[in-house]
Amino acid sequence: MLNTKFAIPDIIFGDGAITHLAQCARRVGAQRIFFVSDQGLEDAGWVDMVKGILRTEKLDCVYFNDVKSNPRDKQVHRGAEIYLEERCDVIVALGGGSPMDAAKGIGIIVGNGGKIRDYEGANRIMRPLPPMILIPSTAGSSSDISQFCIITDVEREVKMSIISRSLVPNISIIDPHILTTQGRDLTLASAIDALSHAVESYVSKLASPFTEMNALKAIELIIKNIKPAAEDGDSKALENLSIASTAAGMSFSNASLGTLHALAHSLGGVCDVLHGWVHPILLPSVMRYNLPSCIEKMGTIGRYISGPRVCPDIQAAELGINTLEKLFAEFGLNTKLHKIVPHKASLEKICKIATRDVCHLTNPRPANWQDLMNICEEAW
Amino acid sequence: MLNTKFAIPDIIFGDGAITHLAQCARRVGAQRIFFVSDQGLEDAGWVDMVKGILRTEKLDCVYFNDVKSNPRDKQVHRGAEIYLEERCDVIVALGGGSPMDAAKGIGIIVGNGGKIRDYEGANRIMRPLPPMILIPSTAGSSSDISQFCIITDVEREVKMSIISRSLVPNISIIDPHILTTQGRDLTLASAIDALSHAVESYVSKLASPFTEMNALKAIELIIKNIKPAAEDGDSKALENLSIASTAAGMSFSNASLGTLHALAHSLGGVCDVLHGWVHPILLPSVMRYNLPSCIEKMGTIGRYISGPRVCPDIQAAELGINTLEKLFAEFGLNTKLHKIVPHKASLEKICKIATRDVCHLTNPRPANWQDLMNICEEAW
Repeated sequence: MLNTKFAIPDIIFGDGAITHLAQCARRVGAQRIFFVSDQGLEDAGWVDMVKGILRTEKLDCVYFNDVKSNPRDKQVHRGAEIYLEERCDVIVALGGGSPMDAAKGIGIIVGNGGKIRDYEGANRIMRPLPPMILIPSTAGSSSDISQFCIITDVEREVKMSIISRSLVPNISIIDPHILTTQGRDLTLASAIDALSHAVESYVSKLASPFTEMNALKAIELIIKNIKPAAEDGDSKALENLSIASTAAGMSFSNASLGTLHALAHSLGGVCDVLHGWVHPILLPSVMRYNLPSCIEKMGTIGRYISGPRVCPDIQAAELGINTLEKLFAEFGLNTKLHKIVPHKASLEKICKIATRDVCHLTNPRPANWQDLMNICEEAW
Repeated sequence: MLNTKFAIPDIIFGDGAITHLAQCARRVGAQRIFFVSDQGLEDAGWVDMVKGILRTEKLDCVYFNDVKSNPRDKQVHRGAEIYLEERCDVIVALGGGSPMDAAKGIGIIVGNGGKIRDYEGANRIMRPLPPMILIPSTAGSSSDISQFCIITDVEREVKMSIISRSLVPNISIIDPHILTTQGRDLTLASAIDALSHAVESYVSKLASPFTEMNALKAIELIIKNIKPAAEDGDSKALENLSIASTAAGMSFSNASLGTLHALAHSLGGVCDVLHGWVHPILLPSVMRYNLPSCIEKMGTIGRYISGPRVCPDIQAAELGINTLEKLFAEFGLNTKLHKIVPHKASLEKICKIATRDVCHLTNPRPANWQDLMNICEEAW
């Protein structure tokens, strides 16, 4: 029998959705907003646009942009101090995974005190966060949909997975027009991240019919739209990647992920690599490792990737994995682990840390650190 | 370009999910709960079970059961008076569409004052409702998921559609085990209501990828499970109908419905018929009327109903409609309108009222009251 939970934020989706921000902020009681974004979005003009929307509606705004890719614990603590000093009441974040996760981390500390590492793992946040409105600028992380927040503990060199229902924001404002100012690489890294969310959550031990249909929809849309979106910046294809990323977010937020993400977090903590670039390296190897535990589901994934065909599931699954490898090669993406890990000796540490990541718990096939070493060797 | 909103409650799903009620009530701040249900659920023992769960957790509870099938405006106003007199702070409802819609109506008046007819139509509720936790006892209305509330205005003989984001409850607790005490007829009427939600929302003018995948999942699960659930009370089939109804709810709540539901509301206001029994009579005729406006989508629906096949969409669509008619006949359901409408002369009034129902606005093919007369004539 199925036992499951399913939670997502209110979603406002579409070109121009960002113009609803002030109204949304009023709805959650905003008077003084703590607004998190980053340099890239300042340069593209989106930060000024958000400030303008808030100013027009006479909403005070404290701006915070001390956010790096793979946001750090110190940045979160500093943000929380400013939020409290400035007596803000609502958090708005505009960005990819990093500004949104930083915003969530700040919300955790504002609402619960302590240090961010106190909340590592699942369901360790006891008190409510301030209302949050998140505006994704990439179609990948889906932090605007999810119960996840990934923050780097610099001292321990660990990207911590923090998972809690309270990390689902109140409102996600998804405006695909924002994607039009990003470059090919960011489009690709984001789409492949969303694809990995869909694949891992579809075969997760916690998958349910509510998450599975979202995962498959995401895979279908990413496979169809990744090329025209990345190579031509086609606006309809970018919109479809936004839909895909949102669907993948609904899936992984509620079904969790697997060993690929456990390894990606662990690699990101030690090597500070862009999260999305880990997947072309490890996704095929992890799919091959998991295949014996979920042949039927991997067959379904394979048919969504390579098209419908009458053949045994195992063949469809293998064909799907091969097709993905070809796709990554066509895009000229790095698929070799040695290019991002400076010293092979650090693999053991990386694999041991990964087995303690909460994402690892829901992987369909059990794996100890030696199994992860084999996966890494295959991708070396 | 797609412009859409998507909102659903937090969902807790599974056998025994009802035992989480007290914890959920605490989460939304309950101290004194206004609990709405009805005689049927008292007889089946579920009302006592809920009271017991709340008592064990020392949560006060005021019980209200003055709810008939097709809940009336007066019942809503009386419930709101009691809620305020008793200084309750959270609404819990256990039931099919009627107790849940009555609870929503009570919430509207408690939060906004006035009379329930002041809120007829879309987006007319301006102030928040008390927190609501809904526990469906049927797999059909999905009022526990939706932005809809249907209340009968007795004086005007109109079942009013009230639609607002604020009518989505905070939490939906879906425990398929509750379905095991219902009889064949209620299982059938509910499943066919959910099927109609899925079909109408799939072709609605407001459908989006987020609603469409839920609608198709619902159709697939209902077609596969309606027989074993209704004829044998098979518990896995009942669980699947619960999943289907929930998915259909996610779809129609956000994409709205169409002319079938406009007519069903209008018929229900004049004739006080059980909502679910209208659909076997009118669903095929409305599908045939809509077919020219959405041939591809109706073809997809047809393939979900009758199985995949290589043929033009129009053929697949017609086959699907014919298959539904056969299914209704196999179950021995009434498919003739004259058996529920006492006087044919009242059809004109029924059709005119239906054209003013908010559900009618999103029907894929425009229809005036004369068109609706033709649909009714076909089903007479």
